[in-house]
Amino acid sequence: MIYLGIDPGSHNLGYAFLEERRGKMFVLEYGVIRAKPKDSLFERLQDINQELKVRILDYNPDILGLEGIFFSKNPKSALILGQARGSILACFFGSSTKIIEFSPKEIKQAVALKGNASKQQVALMVQQRLNLQEIPKSLDASDALAIAYTAYLRNNS
Amino acid sequence: MIYLGIDPGSHNLGYAFLEERRGKMFVLEYGVIRAKPKDSLFERLQDINQELKVRILDYNPDILGLEGIFFSKNPKSALILGQARGSILACFFGSSTKIIEFSPKEIKQAVALKGNASKQQVALMVQQRLNLQEIPKSLDASDALAIAYTAYLRNNS
Repeated sequence: MIYLGIDPGSHNLGYAFLEERRGKMFVLEYGVIRAKPKDSLFERLQDINQELKVRILDYNPDILGLEGIFFSKNPKSALILGQARGSILACFFGSSTKIIEFSPKEIKQAVALKGNASKQQVALMVQQRLNLQEIPKSLDASDALAIAYTAYLRNNS
Repeated sequence: MIYLGIDPGSHNLGYAFLEERRGKMFVLEYGVIRAKPKDSLFERLQDINQELKVRILDYNPDILGLEGIFFSKNPKSALILGQARGSILACFFGSSTKIIEFSPKEIKQAVALKGNASKQQVALMVQQRLNLQEIPKSLDASDALAIAYTAYLRNNS
């Protein structure tokens, strides 16, 4: 069973592919896809989408974890983040990948055992739970790992 | 030259394909794609996207017109509308279709010659400018016609 966690953004996207084999978790790949900062929103989303699709074809995830209902105080940034999220959803139209959504609080609770954990605490706990050699350098990547791990826990609870 | 105007939404999407031949505009097709109201956001966007893609393949538009920078007072609805817009943008990733964006005011100005025209006034002017037999029944469709028409004007100005 392959889990993909995604932390979408309009400039950077964090992703993590985990595989569950005989009840054990293995990290297949994680990282950050970065768009060119000066490109238009369309170009940035296009580049991120195309790079992500290559990896989706490689790993063919069974389960996609995403942050679900969440709020932004700023309508303008909500509109941009929404477009980033929508263009990622489109990668899975017509696919058999099952989507599981959680709140940021649920992810922190699952990984760090407290709903108000900081991003740094989440990164540290992700390293421990997944036996990573080092703490992920990018918080986008550690968030994606946390999301994929939460999807795994949810799917096995 | 084929123009596509799109008015995206998370439940309904208005679309209009216009063709310019020897300086004259012809309406190829317009209408509204409606998702099932009780489906999840993902399912609704997926259905709308798939129906739209069939038409894009049919007509292969050169120019896509879209409402560009706009604001919503409500971050929650901005996030949903953003996702609808992002999943539509994804239909054009890797394509040669040129995207032109305008503000709602520019569209009203172009079609009804006043930036504060009502949607009903826009629908009436669209009927006249494009010689439609009747006023489009759906405001989503008349908005899409207005957007396609504005794209045509912009591309020829």
